[in-house]
Amino acid sequence: MAAALSPLAPKSYPELPEIEGVRFAAGEAGIRYKGRTDVMLALFDKGTQVAGVFTKSRCPSAPVDWCRARLAGGKARALVVNSGNANAFTGKTGAQAAKLTATIAAKATGAPQTEIFLASTGVIGEPLDASKFVGVLEKLAARAKPGDMFDAATAIMTTDTYQKVATVGVEIDGVPVTLSGMAKGAGMIAPDMATMLAFVFTDAPIAAPALQAMLSKSVQGSFNAITVDSDTSTSDTLLLFATGAAKRRGAPEITAANDRRLAPFKMALDVLLLDLAHQVVKDGEGARKFVEITVVGAASNAAAKRIALSVANSPLVKTAIAGEDANWGRIVMAVGKAGEKADRDLLAIWFGDIRVATKGQRDPRYDEAEVSQLMKKPKIDISIEIGLGRGQATVWTCDLTKEYVEINGDYRS
Amino acid sequence: MAAALSPLAPKSYPELPEIEGVRFAAGEAGIRYKGRTDVMLALFDKGTQVAGVFTKSRCPSAPVDWCRARLAGGKARALVVNSGNANAFTGKTGAQAAKLTATIAAKATGAPQTEIFLASTGVIGEPLDASKFVGVLEKLAARAKPGDMFDAATAIMTTDTYQKVATVGVEIDGVPVTLSGMAKGAGMIAPDMATMLAFVFTDAPIAAPALQAMLSKSVQGSFNAITVDSDTSTSDTLLLFATGAAKRRGAPEITAANDRRLAPFKMALDVLLLDLAHQVVKDGEGARKFVEITVVGAASNAAAKRIALSVANSPLVKTAIAGEDANWGRIVMAVGKAGEKADRDLLAIWFGDIRVATKGQRDPRYDEAEVSQLMKKPKIDISIEIGLGRGQATVWTCDLTKEYVEINGDYRS
Repeated sequence: MAAALSPLAPKSYPELPEIEGVRFAAGEAGIRYKGRTDVMLALFDKGTQVAGVFTKSRCPSAPVDWCRARLAGGKARALVVNSGNANAFTGKTGAQAAKLTATIAAKATGAPQTEIFLASTGVIGEPLDASKFVGVLEKLAARAKPGDMFDAATAIMTTDTYQKVATVGVEIDGVPVTLSGMAKGAGMIAPDMATMLAFVFTDAPIAAPALQAMLSKSVQGSFNAITVDSDTSTSDTLLLFATGAAKRRGAPEITAANDRRLAPFKMALDVLLLDLAHQVVKDGEGARKFVEITVVGAASNAAAKRIALSVANSPLVKTAIAGEDANWGRIVMAVGKAGEKADRDLLAIWFGDIRVATKGQRDPRYDEAEVSQLMKKPKIDISIEIGLGRGQATVWTCDLTKEYVEINGDYRS
Repeated sequence: MAAALSPLAPKSYPELPEIEGVRFAAGEAGIRYKGRTDVMLALFDKGTQVAGVFTKSRCPSAPVDWCRARLAGGKARALVVNSGNANAFTGKTGAQAAKLTATIAAKATGAPQTEIFLASTGVIGEPLDASKFVGVLEKLAARAKPGDMFDAATAIMTTDTYQKVATVGVEIDGVPVTLSGMAKGAGMIAPDMATMLAFVFTDAPIAAPALQAMLSKSVQGSFNAITVDSDTSTSDTLLLFATGAAKRRGAPEITAANDRRLAPFKMALDVLLLDLAHQVVKDGEGARKFVEITVVGAASNAAAKRIALSVANSPLVKTAIAGEDANWGRIVMAVGKAGEKADRDLLAIWFGDIRVATKGQRDPRYDEAEVSQLMKKPKIDISIEIGLGRGQATVWTCDLTKEYVEINGDYRS
């Protein structure tokens, strides 16, 4: 828990503008940790719309089950998130704990239970004692303020070494709106889901179905394109809340995702999710290097992504990067095992702008000393040309270090 | 290279009986290492039959290409294996180096090039200077002896910390025959192929098509059921040579894999391959624990195997085992992400004979102290009951330690 700050941590945090219609508070419920906040509450004005994507795990956590069941209503009044316990694989007790949390939150906030969203993160398999929220959530509801988003982002951290927040301003039909988000996650990070916990808030007046369509699309190139350790969590949850408060300032109410006036908002959402996703990777457990892997020339975009993820998830590629070794032979191996169309003799590989391999063998012109220099940098760019088609994809990962093993060898004990 | 002996190494080596029709020799070609042997030669009597399985990588090594092309003939007179350089991703130069090796070997042994098999292991992407075999192979051919199999097994080691050999005696129609094998491999070990290099020799008179059928079947439950790091090698090669010398002692010549007289031999082959496969896992880079994962009650055997491998390849499960933490929550996670049918609330998990989870939650009766004691052992057995069907599978892996990261962070440099 007391891991040193990731060397890839942001140098500074953005100032988070208040978002009309959202208030935040963080407190101590004593779920697992002592002397730190471990629960956050976000309160939304009436009429707030919500969209979400969740883990594709067959063993989802109780809060994921809870949110999935509530999402159809499209409305949200409160979000309760605790750290220290994931309330995952906790059977009926887990479902009861989720319901009890929502009951306490409903009482504390005056919101209907059906509009309360939940997330939990921490140890799997331990029963969550939700009765600890009694009293705590009342206090948080009473003191929740629009400006306390950073405190909320702090309360949901587990093995994270820094808070992950981002904000973007954008216009809808000439009216400025804000889009801000927070995320947590450092391990058990893998693609094909909405990784770990991330919450995005906006004052834009956008209806839930339009929000959902945009979110499901935007997540593909951001959270679903990162991996720390190939391990998909039971608890992955990404929720997007739109309070609609900007309507009072003249923003049009938007109901369809294909409304042209949403174009800048969509771009802003892409930028924001990618920013948060990158922050998650940069806080990957034990990470020392941030790695961007681009595959071009694959048979399809899907094939390109699978090849890129095969490289990104290879322990041998990741340990080589940790050792600052431009071991492109291992990249060849990972391309070869991806199960997608590839022809060894058409393959080319770059580190940064240095081509190290071409036409199925070492590039005779590359200079090992130059590449070694490049490998010392904190950001490593790997490009792979398959040479077969027009499919392309980019994914992000981090290196695999001894610290990852150390952190995960004694997380529970 | 100078890693300490794996704590899971065998306490003693078996005495390797001579196999009629096979002679071995090992020597120094100076491919990469100094002061150790790095090339082995096995010579086979005329009429020796051969079967093989290879990596499914789309980027196979030049020796794999070479062997695949020669396998159709079904006959073998010599096997040349070098360590220090994998001759993989070496383009046309690599194919030329393989051909040059075969040419030198043909001259040294008098065997036709089409009956010479090759394998190389070591660094990927560096050109192999096969001219270094000139003179060396002649000397090896001159001094090859039936008793020198262990020396041969020593010459093919790379990051291996011990030699992997095994032998089984069995009868065919009342005539005793011998089946002996060697393997190498410690990293870049993943299933769905014939992992790394393994060579099996017998004096049984069995025709190549029957050998091939048996080998392809036997590999599924042995080499294709192990994983060290989920990274499939470019060079995986498993060859089975049958000299037929036992014919002189009255063994019947067998041409069909379904010949009933082969039943004991098939079992012996299964035992031998599994023994070698286990030895590879026990020498997994940085391994401190040998882990057996059994999945029962899955929708099918294939589903059971995919779930078992999802657990076996999970960095979080493997680091927990390294930390002697019975973190069954991570097993739930790995079952959930496998993409196979599973129902959280039917799942049960055992460490050894202690059930830690049942019906979607922690088993209320299990004793953490008892499980912790069990986790200190060098062999960890994990059983997972899916509760849906009759599919089952067992796979083997090792833990993920800081030593793995260390070994692979500076292998090339």
